[in-house]
Amino acid sequence: MAKVVTLGEIMLRLSPNGQDRFIQTDIFRIIPGGGEANVAVSCANYGHDAYLVTKLPAHEIGQIAVNSLRRYGVNTEFIARGGDRVGLYYCETGASMRPSKVIYDRANSAIAEANPEDFDFDAIMEGADWFHWSGITPAISDKAAELTKLACEAAKRHGVTVSVDLNFRKKLWTSEKAISIMRPLMQYVDVCIGNEEDAELCLGFKPDADVEGGETNAAGYEGIFKQMKEEFGFKYVVSTLRESYSATFNGWKALIYDGKEFYQSKRYEINPIIDRVGGGDSFSGGLIHGLLTKETQGEALEFAVAASALKHTINGDYNLVNASEVEALAGGNANGRVQR
Amino acid sequence: MAKVVTLGEIMLRLSPNGQDRFIQTDIFRIIPGGGEANVAVSCANYGHDAYLVTKLPAHEIGQIAVNSLRRYGVNTEFIARGGDRVGLYYCETGASMRPSKVIYDRANSAIAEANPEDFDFDAIMEGADWFHWSGITPAISDKAAELTKLACEAAKRHGVTVSVDLNFRKKLWTSEKAISIMRPLMQYVDVCIGNEEDAELCLGFKPDADVEGGETNAAGYEGIFKQMKEEFGFKYVVSTLRESYSATFNGWKALIYDGKEFYQSKRYEINPIIDRVGGGDSFSGGLIHGLLTKETQGEALEFAVAASALKHTINGDYNLVNASEVEALAGGNANGRVQR
Amino acid sequence: MAKVVTLGEIMLRLSPNGQDRFIQTDIFRIIPGGGEANVAVSCANYGHDAYLVTKLPAHEIGQIAVNSLRRYGVNTEFIARGGDRVGLYYCETGASMRPSKVIYDRANSAIAEANPEDFDFDAIMEGADWFHWSGITPAISDKAAELTKLACEAAKRHGVTVSVDLNFRKKLWTSEKAISIMRPLMQYVDVCIGNEEDAELCLGFKPDADVEGGETNAAGYEGIFKQMKEEFGFKYVVSTLRESYSATFNGWKALIYDGKEFYQSKRYEINPIIDRVGGGDSFSGGLIHGLLTKETQGEALEFAVAASALKHTINGDYNLVNASEVEALAGGNANGRVQR
Amino acid sequence: MAKVVTLGEIMLRLSPNGQDRFIQTDIFRIIPGGGEANVAVSCANYGHDAYLVTKLPAHEIGQIAVNSLRRYGVNTEFIARGGDRVGLYYCETGASMRPSKVIYDRANSAIAEANPEDFDFDAIMEGADWFHWSGITPAISDKAAELTKLACEAAKRHGVTVSVDLNFRKKLWTSEKAISIMRPLMQYVDVCIGNEEDAELCLGFKPDADVEGGETNAAGYEGIFKQMKEEFGFKYVVSTLRESYSATFNGWKALIYDGKEFYQSKRYEINPIIDRVGGGDSFSGGLIHGLLTKETQGEALEFAVAASALKHTINGDYNLVNASEVEALAGGNANGRVQR
Amino acid sequence: MAKVVTLGEIMLRLSPNGQDRFIQTDIFRIIPGGGEANVAVSCANYGHDAYLVTKLPAHEIGQIAVNSLRRYGVNTEFIARGGDRVGLYYCETGASMRPSKVIYDRANSAIAEANPEDFDFDAIMEGADWFHWSGITPAISDKAAELTKLACEAAKRHGVTVSVDLNFRKKLWTSEKAISIMRPLMQYVDVCIGNEEDAELCLGFKPDADVEGGETNAAGYEGIFKQMKEEFGFKYVVSTLRESYSATFNGWKALIYDGKEFYQSKRYEINPIIDRVGGGDSFSGGLIHGLLTKETQGEALEFAVAASALKHTINGDYNLVNASEVEALAGGNANGRVQR
Amino acid sequence: MAKVVTLGEIMLRLSPNGQDRFIQTDIFRIIPGGGEANVAVSCANYGHDAYLVTKLPAHEIGQIAVNSLRRYGVNTEFIARGGDRVGLYYCETGASMRPSKVIYDRANSAIAEANPEDFDFDAIMEGADWFHWSGITPAISDKAAELTKLACEAAKRHGVTVSVDLNFRKKLWTSEKAISIMRPLMQYVDVCIGNEEDAELCLGFKPDADVEGGETNAAGYEGIFKQMKEEFGFKYVVSTLRESYSATFNGWKALIYDGKEFYQSKRYEINPIIDRVGGGDSFSGGLIHGLLTKETQGEALEFAVAASALKHTINGDYNLVNASEVEALAGGNANGRVQR
Repeated sequence: MAKVVTLGEIMLRLSPNGQDRFIQTDIFRIIPGGGEANVAVSCANYGHDAYLVTKLPAHEIGQIAVNSLRRYGVNTEFIARGGDRVGLYYCETGASMRPSKVIYDRANSAIAEANPEDFDFDAIMEGADWFHWSGITPAISDKAAELTKLACEAAKRHGVTVSVDLNFRKKLWTSEKAISIMRPLMQYVDVCIGNEEDAELCLGFKPDADVEGGETNAAGYEGIFKQMKEEFGFKYVVSTLRESYSATFNGWKALIYDGKEFYQSKRYEINPIIDRVGGGDSFSGGLIHGLLTKETQGEALEFAVAASALKHTINGDYNLVNASEVEALAGGNANGRVQR
Repeated sequence: MAKVVTLGEIMLRLSPNGQDRFIQTDIFRIIPGGGEANVAVSCANYGHDAYLVTKLPAHEIGQIAVNSLRRYGVNTEFIARGGDRVGLYYCETGASMRPSKVIYDRANSAIAEANPEDFDFDAIMEGADWFHWSGITPAISDKAAELTKLACEAAKRHGVTVSVDLNFRKKLWTSEKAISIMRPLMQYVDVCIGNEEDAELCLGFKPDADVEGGETNAAGYEGIFKQMKEEFGFKYVVSTLRESYSATFNGWKALIYDGKEFYQSKRYEINPIIDRVGGGDSFSGGLIHGLLTKETQGEALEFAVAASALKHTINGDYNLVNASEVEALAGGNANGRVQR
Repeated sequence: MAKVVTLGEIMLRLSPNGQDRFIQTDIFRIIPGGGEANVAVSCANYGHDAYLVTKLPAHEIGQIAVNSLRRYGVNTEFIARGGDRVGLYYCETGASMRPSKVIYDRANSAIAEANPEDFDFDAIMEGADWFHWSGITPAISDKAAELTKLACEAAKRHGVTVSVDLNFRKKLWTSEKAISIMRPLMQYVDVCIGNEEDAELCLGFKPDADVEGGETNAAGYEGIFKQMKEEFGFKYVVSTLRESYSATFNGWKALIYDGKEFYQSKRYEINPIIDRVGGGDSFSGGLIHGLLTKETQGEALEFAVAASALKHTINGDYNLVNASEVEALAGGNANGRVQR
Repeated sequence: MAKVVTLGEIMLRLSPNGQDRFIQTDIFRIIPGGGEANVAVSCANYGHDAYLVTKLPAHEIGQIAVNSLRRYGVNTEFIARGGDRVGLYYCETGASMRPSKVIYDRANSAIAEANPEDFDFDAIMEGADWFHWSGITPAISDKAAELTKLACEAAKRHGVTVSVDLNFRKKLWTSEKAISIMRPLMQYVDVCIGNEEDAELCLGFKPDADVEGGETNAAGYEGIFKQMKEEFGFKYVVSTLRESYSATFNGWKALIYDGKEFYQSKRYEINPIIDRVGGGDSFSGGLIHGLLTKETQGEALEFAVAASALKHTINGDYNLVNASEVEALAGGNANGRVQR
Repeated sequence: MAKVVTLGEIMLRLSPNGQDRFIQTDIFRIIPGGGEANVAVSCANYGHDAYLVTKLPAHEIGQIAVNSLRRYGVNTEFIARGGDRVGLYYCETGASMRPSKVIYDRANSAIAEANPEDFDFDAIMEGADWFHWSGITPAISDKAAELTKLACEAAKRHGVTVSVDLNFRKKLWTSEKAISIMRPLMQYVDVCIGNEEDAELCLGFKPDADVEGGETNAAGYEGIFKQMKEEFGFKYVVSTLRESYSATFNGWKALIYDGKEFYQSKRYEINPIIDRVGGGDSFSGGLIHGLLTKETQGEALEFAVAASALKHTINGDYNLVNASEVEALAGGNANGRVQR
Repeated sequence: MAKVVTLGEIMLRLSPNGQDRFIQTDIFRIIPGGGEANVAVSCANYGHDAYLVTKLPAHEIGQIAVNSLRRYGVNTEFIARGGDRVGLYYCETGASMRPSKVIYDRANSAIAEANPEDFDFDAIMEGADWFHWSGITPAISDKAAELTKLACEAAKRHGVTVSVDLNFRKKLWTSEKAISIMRPLMQYVDVCIGNEEDAELCLGFKPDADVEGGETNAAGYEGIFKQMKEEFGFKYVVSTLRESYSATFNGWKALIYDGKEFYQSKRYEINPIIDRVGGGDSFSGGLIHGLLTKETQGEALEFAVAASALKHTINGDYNLVNASEVEALAGGNANGRVQR
């Protein structure tokens, strides 16, 4: 059991039931989540002592977010309380050729307006084994970017392994802004997760493959992975490779590189997808568990890919699976027979 | 923005949740819809000034139907109020090899018993660009058939383009009755939508292909389209071509003929189908928008097919998509990636 | 219309909505069911006078189970009332590579603690045409095994045809225990339903094929069917052959042997599966109807396979289809077109 | 356990959830019920062998009604199947000063169009102890009035006690029509249930009290009861006395007269009312049980009043209580303490 | 039928079901509403041509608000589209001594950031009969205060009657700020609605009574009403008088003063309250209808009080009643008998 | 912030929606709760470090219970995992004169079969301030009674204050058995909560008043309180006094005695009651907080009574209120005005 710290925003996802569209629903399901929160829940599910560091309003809507983390075993001790808003996003789930659609309403959330004084990063990183954040966190606001830097520095002071999921979000910042913020932060990073598009938009690398096209070319990633490792000294460079055939049917695999070996995982066909949102985060969560507990990068990656394949079959941002369920799938049991 | 008038019945669809069967549900979802109402909603979604002409009881159940039209932007100014019943149909959604099932309870509805005095068709057609009706409207009752004729005459008086979706319904009338009513009405029609089965049962043309068989043969339609154009002078003859593999999985494309060119659209594979009911109406709605705004019959048809493919992924009769969503699919973006 | 008697437990299945997992739901759907209850409902749906013999507490939770049987036309006259518990099982529905999961909570249910005095098996079997039970019933408890024996004896005294679905359940007993109880009961059985795994674990036959592997080999069943018929004198030996590609997609067919002919049914591809639980029971129910009313074992088997294919598209344990729906599918109509 | 026969229509009540209004709901709860069906369910709940005689379409919507009766133990053997429609009524539940509202859609239902050949009234009344109908049945249609007469005649041939709940419905017929049909039917009636308004509108008696006014005056009923008994020779004349303070809060008591004694029951204050619809029917059901099993008319009436008071606390038309629950309340236990 | 214009914000209310608390729900009901939107819906329900002037984002969440207005007949022609956010408020419904609780999340909504160029107030006021706004609108932001002033000026240019509901909201501004903004706007106002607390906090009048205390003293209002009329020349000064006994039980009446007569309405006891939010707005909507159509201020006030009493029995912000329902209650029919 | 330890069973309550009866529902709400779990949640809500000591199966149904405790901030560190069953109880909510009904299914739950080795009571009590248990815990099983004794002994070794809620449950044990187990445990108890009935049935004291009768006589408690204090040396003897007028309307107050002063609290009228179950536990939770933080027994009692009055307005076993909400009510703010 490792101490895993994450830093980022937890929002409420407001979604119609099933595949109903926004303009035909009269209820929203409330689905708390956010990149790093999702990773924290995954780590807690695998038995780790997982923390989300964030800020949430003191009122009941903030409490909904706190309670959902506690419910799934995430330690909320370092969540600052205050500010006005819980970030929201509206999400409707697509089907077949109709894509899922996300509308953000996250500006001016409590974490976007948090200050360094809200957190004692040395206390937070004390005894920690792993620190994970995503490119969303510094994109939220300049204040949040500053918090990210402070957290990374503290992590390094305490000898904590740092992973990042680059996760470029065009609604939050431009590529130029992203590059100016993200590149300096890479010095703290040991494990870098991101596809070619992220590498280009967050770090300025030139892409080799067309990731819009559904079909993905793992071989095309090798060059860029080598450049990334070379420039920033990452221990591991990792990417998922999604093949989007429709909103319901995707192929899913991943690639890891440790400077010696390019290891490509098994490929899964996910059909039907129940909920795609949080798929990447569940991969990060699985990878952290894998790298913390497995002998080889290949085993770690297979755990991460199986974990995130399962996530696609589960409603909500959180990947509500335990390690033995992931191991069963990674071990080859994908026939879906009823477990009695 | 064109003024589009439709004439027909709006009913309440009463459906169990999801794929539950009638005899296991204890709730019904209320889903207002009807062939022409669905077309009107589509046209309103694409920015047109759309009207449904119908009659509904003055009580709250009639108001439910009126309100659903208003909610989605249809002008209800020409809806007469009075009569006793809102037409109903019960519908359970199938899955895999289990078909969806519809049970009608629409006899004696307000529109079936409406009189010419309920409507001022000259006022209705004044300034209109398009008038659409389906073969269901005259099939409802002799009174409704009379209204259809009056509306067509007024449309012609006002220089309005007229489209019909033949849509034979064996629960409402026999082929003999249909032919006797429908053939005389064809003189008013500019755009005729209907597959071979409709052409046979409503208009008396001999079919060339077996449309029950799932696989459809577009080539087989050419002969009948030519005959239809020749006999009735339609500007366009149009048909969708559905390949029914199961209640969940269909192929979908369409064919249009303007007397010069047979244009066949792209083919979509829809899997899973969320709700098939209203699929044909969404095609008609898309076609009207396409013919009103596109340069070529091919572009118009691609819009219509993409629009109706999307409809299959949406719960309810109404095709709750806007023009830009349809254009995106018609333009080739069918990979279902999350739109953030 | 035959009198069909079944003996076994009816439980309440408690399930989250849709594909939600146990740990994210805050409601359970209540779905009464159980191997023999499901068979009884099937037989009632096909027009037979079907009985479930069981014991249920006198309180309202027991009444929920009684009422669900009455609702679907099962005669509950021979249900003893008393005892403390209604057996329960929790079931979450999987999707894609995530399997459905069942957690039993059935120990000490009323039927597990029932006594011979609770039932008058001669009255029950009087005039009956068929008696069906499954290997689950004697596995529940020693008392229930004794009841099974008493019922079989009474059935034979009254000239009733007896069918069994071997249905080995490892949570209820060991293979050793199963063999010691089940083998002596086979003398009463006319129709034996069970796959190779059941034949091995309940009756001690050696398997020829690997049924875990998804792909099934019908030919491999011939040897074991011959042995089973030889040793126990069954009139028919029958097995379903499930190909599990995922929790959502299965192949489905069956095999019957009457000592002369091995008849293999059509194969269905079920995609999506709505609810797999009760699939085998719906096959038994269809087979009983088939053998009671059809001319050949082949026709009987085709009815049973079509019936159970349909079951996979229906929520809940009960196969809520009537005979004409099954005949339509067995007759080749699998295209899923809307039935209006 | 007596054989109790009822004759009348069973409809589906379609209601929004809770206190939602028609025009704001997008679902309807499906609540089967109808005056005589409700009485039959009550009698079944008290352990009697209860029958509803009616006609319902052969399709699944008709089956919903049949299944709801079977679920609650009513014998459906004498329900004819055929015709087109299940009668419907829409009902929204009021609160405080907002009244509940009912919109009927029951014209041309299967029972309204049933013929004498649909029923074998001698078989139906054979061995029966009690026959109950309400003034709604003959009001449905002339055909239904004819059926009522035939049923009454058969009841008398078989020595069956006959009760009627006058239940005038102004939407179904005028007072003149009601009087012309109902008065001749009174010769078959032993137990007549109805308040002053019913007595006036169905039978032509002059009222003594203002029943609209909330406050009811039991004494004012004595004169009219005597007249009714005198003219028609009823064994018992009975009326409930409702005090309507609001949609949520009513007073509730009843009066019975056997020609010797005017017995007035205890008075209950019902607050909150959960569902008022079916309140009168639950009284009739309780009265039948009371008169069949109690020593005195007073005891019978107290059972009926307690039963119907409980009904007001239960959702749906059916009074889902058993005899011991009614006895507990009639015996004075109204404190609402949790029963563990 | 008058043209009634309102100006203000429409938000989405997000509420748990029934009386569930925020921290125990996992869904929100979506309930569009806002002070002036609620008034507009009331006026549309009474048959007027009602407009809401506001600004909403162009995305689907903005569309939800637009569609809800259209559904209930409000003209949305003058709603500007653009900006980022739809204002939200979270609301949980109390019971007994537990109060309802509202948490606002409305900062930076589209209307709060709207500019004068978004609206053509002369076009809006052209032909209008009535313009209504509340103290919430100028409190939203300085920009919204400017819009309010522009609208008032245009109203006066076009001879439109202007009403205001003072409605002080301490979360939006201080009393000092309110007074500085509101007092200058009073010159445009003909009808001023507000209780003593509003008069003090928005206009700087000294209160005479303690409105926190549940019991209200109508007499105490006379002095302040006279001052208000004198200072600002209002045609009518109006206030509701709420007696809060619990979250479930309130007394409700109102007072109007035209410079000659103090008229106090009937008093209603509302028990249970289904939804209190929007109660004041429903009063304003009723008052506008009353003053537009009734002979006397007393009749107008009785209509307004009855309308708003009914609102308390209806879920959601909108008062979904029509004029005849209000007239029935105002006319004395409060007994809650089922309307069939 | 104190460390508060509780020992007992947490069950899943399975309840129909609203006031639906068991036999009409097809879903159950899942509501985790249990006497001591409820107290732990209350204490966590008031800011204490609260623990539930229990045993739950390792499977997901056990996890549902664990997660609900974590969600509301209870520390689950000392929950042993193992065993077969989560205890259940079915509960339907009454209304007006219809009582709520509970059906238990808790035999053989994990905690009922737990062993001393499952818990390290010295570690558990280390640093604790308060230990609370109820008479339900030793009533569950002899094993659970042994655990209770071990926990009490450890509490005394560590100087922890001990409170008990006597809470006699006739379904779990006889009065004789209760007295034989409970009396010896009283030596460890500092604060004894229980009404006269509990005192008689658990401890053998003779009652002075009739607590069935709705009206309660606080004075009548004085004698028995004195005896209890005298015999067992309690620091405080406490009882709630419930007046049951109906399932919807109760009076509620309490009495405390410290050997010097009999202090009787304010009396609340709760109408409507939303959920009565857990009312007593919320009182215990409030009392623990009160005695830990208030100056006088009177203040402590007022906090406890206000807390439990609020609980009656909240769905579920847990009292989801914070201290400031309780203080507001205890301070006199019971008017239920909307908190904005």
